[in-house]
Amino acid sequence: MRLSRYLLPLLKENPSEAQIVSHRLMLRTGMIRQEAAGIYAWLPLGLRVLRKIEKIVHEEMQRAGAVELLMPTLQLADLWRESGRYDDYGQEMLRIKDRHEREMLYGPTNEEMITEIFRGTVKSYKDLPMNLYHIQWKFRDEQRPRFGVMRGREFLMKDAYSFDIDEASARKAYNRMFIAYLNTFSRLGLKAVPMRADTGPIGGDLSHEFIILAETGESAVFCHKDLVDMPAPGADVDWDDLQGLVDQRTSLYAATEEMHDEAAFNAVPADKQLSARGIEVGHIFYFGEKYSAPMGAKVSGADGSQVNVHMGSYGVGVSRLIGGIIEASHDEAGIIWPESVTPFDVALVNLRVGDEACDAACEKAYKALKAAGRDVLYHDTDDRPGAKFASMDLIGIPWQLIIGPKGIAEGQVEIKHRATGERHTAAFDAVLEQLTKAK
Amino acid sequence: MRLSRYLLPLLKENPSEAQIVSHRLMLRTGMIRQEAAGIYAWLPLGLRVLRKIEKIVHEEMQRAGAVELLMPTLQLADLWRESGRYDDYGQEMLRIKDRHEREMLYGPTNEEMITEIFRGTVKSYKDLPMNLYHIQWKFRDEQRPRFGVMRGREFLMKDAYSFDIDEASARKAYNRMFIAYLNTFSRLGLKAVPMRADTGPIGGDLSHEFIILAETGESAVFCHKDLVDMPAPGADVDWDDLQGLVDQRTSLYAATEEMHDEAAFNAVPADKQLSARGIEVGHIFYFGEKYSAPMGAKVSGADGSQVNVHMGSYGVGVSRLIGGIIEASHDEAGIIWPESVTPFDVALVNLRVGDEACDAACEKAYKALKAAGRDVLYHDTDDRPGAKFASMDLIGIPWQLIIGPKGIAEGQVEIKHRATGERHTAAFDAVLEQLTKAK
Repeated sequence: MRLSRYLLPLLKENPSEAQIVSHRLMLRTGMIRQEAAGIYAWLPLGLRVLRKIEKIVHEEMQRAGAVELLMPTLQLADLWRESGRYDDYGQEMLRIKDRHEREMLYGPTNEEMITEIFRGTVKSYKDLPMNLYHIQWKFRDEQRPRFGVMRGREFLMKDAYSFDIDEASARKAYNRMFIAYLNTFSRLGLKAVPMRADTGPIGGDLSHEFIILAETGESAVFCHKDLVDMPAPGADVDWDDLQGLVDQRTSLYAATEEMHDEAAFNAVPADKQLSARGIEVGHIFYFGEKYSAPMGAKVSGADGSQVNVHMGSYGVGVSRLIGGIIEASHDEAGIIWPESVTPFDVALVNLRVGDEACDAACEKAYKALKAAGRDVLYHDTDDRPGAKFASMDLIGIPWQLIIGPKGIAEGQVEIKHRATGERHTAAFDAVLEQLTKAK
Repeated sequence: MRLSRYLLPLLKENPSEAQIVSHRLMLRTGMIRQEAAGIYAWLPLGLRVLRKIEKIVHEEMQRAGAVELLMPTLQLADLWRESGRYDDYGQEMLRIKDRHEREMLYGPTNEEMITEIFRGTVKSYKDLPMNLYHIQWKFRDEQRPRFGVMRGREFLMKDAYSFDIDEASARKAYNRMFIAYLNTFSRLGLKAVPMRADTGPIGGDLSHEFIILAETGESAVFCHKDLVDMPAPGADVDWDDLQGLVDQRTSLYAATEEMHDEAAFNAVPADKQLSARGIEVGHIFYFGEKYSAPMGAKVSGADGSQVNVHMGSYGVGVSRLIGGIIEASHDEAGIIWPESVTPFDVALVNLRVGDEACDAACEKAYKALKAAGRDVLYHDTDDRPGAKFASMDLIGIPWQLIIGPKGIAEGQVEIKHRATGERHTAAFDAVLEQLTKAK
């Protein structure tokens, strides 16, 4: 992408409304633009990150056996009356009347609708286990939306729903999502700790939140230190028997404030007790028959009897994750993107646009990088070099390839690694080879 | 994908509420499920087609120089008061109040919001031309939603918006979208004819609808026959000068009912006069300063003066396209997917699940096809062969690879081409080689 043909409205000053660093940096880098309280447009740079996160979430969901569908944003109020949640949900639910005065709502979550889809389409235990998920915009009418995409009103969520014939099988489904979440967050460059959590308006008796630690976190969390650096299991696991991997983690103390047990926490060795603040990026629930029983989601069992299915639901805050990643990965100069979600792989900086040799070298690099499948942002405007360096540091692309008139006369270019700040000068061809080689 | 792990709820009977063939087939094949009047959930099979269409639309937009962003579904009423459309739009606009009684709406289109984004971020003629687009859910509260996704209420639209310094440049932007649309629809397997069209609530003085001809079309259309089979220009054109390609088409008579000129139509040679019914799949507009003037979207010109930008907008009905494609491509037995948008490339039919040789051959084929990047639906349930054939014909995957116990004992399998109905028996290895070779 040529910057001259792109929309990248950088802000020089820190916007006064942004209280936390991720909100500040997302506004300063022109990733988002507020269109109403808690409602954002995703400008091109921000959208590229959102799409990369979505792709990783899709891959890990499908690896764990989940099947993608897509439910609409608007739902009928009557559907929520079946579960009893229409009246319970309170003011966070955005209630709408259409032209015929039918009561509708903008979905804050989809337990009712997926249960309706399931009961209308699946009839036999032979079709189980089943896990259906989508990535769709949700709306929660927060009293005070704040912190940018971290607590917005219109937000993008991945929500998966598992259906099983009994509790034992449902717990296996829960374990698959538990491990898939660890792998997902790890690929996003995050250290997410699973913690016993309150089930809130979703309900049920078993629930974990996946929490990343950050000073700006919204809630207090307590956990055994070893959980923070425990590596994710990866894809090469036995997906039919994950209990050992789950137990390895749940046997160590970890709880959110609502579920905190001071006595149990004090039993953790003192040097392993970690009391911190955290950001929730995922939340999983097992709630058995809470929706299937009142809504009549049954299948025929092996003996021919009709059985209520056992369900769980599994959410990832896709848009809020961007805030979480930035909170975890930035410095004084701006964002430092993990390679897995960076909006561009390489920033190509032309230090003297209009100089024949510079332009030719940049065009050559641009074409070669694109041909190798790299996403390149080519800084081809006539800004001063200092401004170009500052803006490329600000938006945090992992590698900067810097081409200036003096260097290129000798076949030399500069390469800068954003995370470490290391810069070195090298032969143009060698740098191109390094940046285009298969990952 | 193994059918035993998939959600594919086929209907044996024609649903009584479906009046047109595409609606009927989308329900029968379990592509969609109605959740409220004009509001559908996209079940896994339908979503795969939607995603393939989106991908083609993205590629052709970006080839024509458009940059992707993503605007939210909900908008502030005050934004629409700036253009004067809030009161004009009528009952098709879904009006919403949030918990603080702020007036909002579910966007039916985005001219106001993109103009607000533009005026807040772009300041100079040097940043033009610019074309920004997104693919996002829209809502239009139709009085009588019908025909499935063809006239739904919550629907997926691609909308692009061009910004130029003057009318001459804006007409070039219009031409780029004109040609991009021809290429897009052609890749989707559709013959779409550009026709002079009414501008309706969007406004402006130049507009074309892209119409596919179908008996079930919603409106009467009139055109020169040569336009129907005129091939799309393709990607290899001079994107800076497309006037000749556009003129070649607009010089022939083509108009929707609202713009129909009987006298001009009668001037077309009698054997070239085509009067038919059509389905609108795209609509493009040039409307100059209609939004930029009242909303103050200006840039500084080369002489330093402040100039209102000239705008156009360009819509493609992404979800309704699926209905259009099915209307254009089906037979008595079901859907016939064009290869570019088919939900799966190959249906792998195991005629005797449980037979060791059949299962082994199917597993081998399944792995080989997946390794070659083919999307495969493996029919691995214990349905009777007749039911399997009928359901695979119904869902319309282009190629069926049929493996049965008699054939495989002799190393033979059957391959069926859905569009022509041709079946032939051949050596297993040769068929696998054919289906896995690079496209």
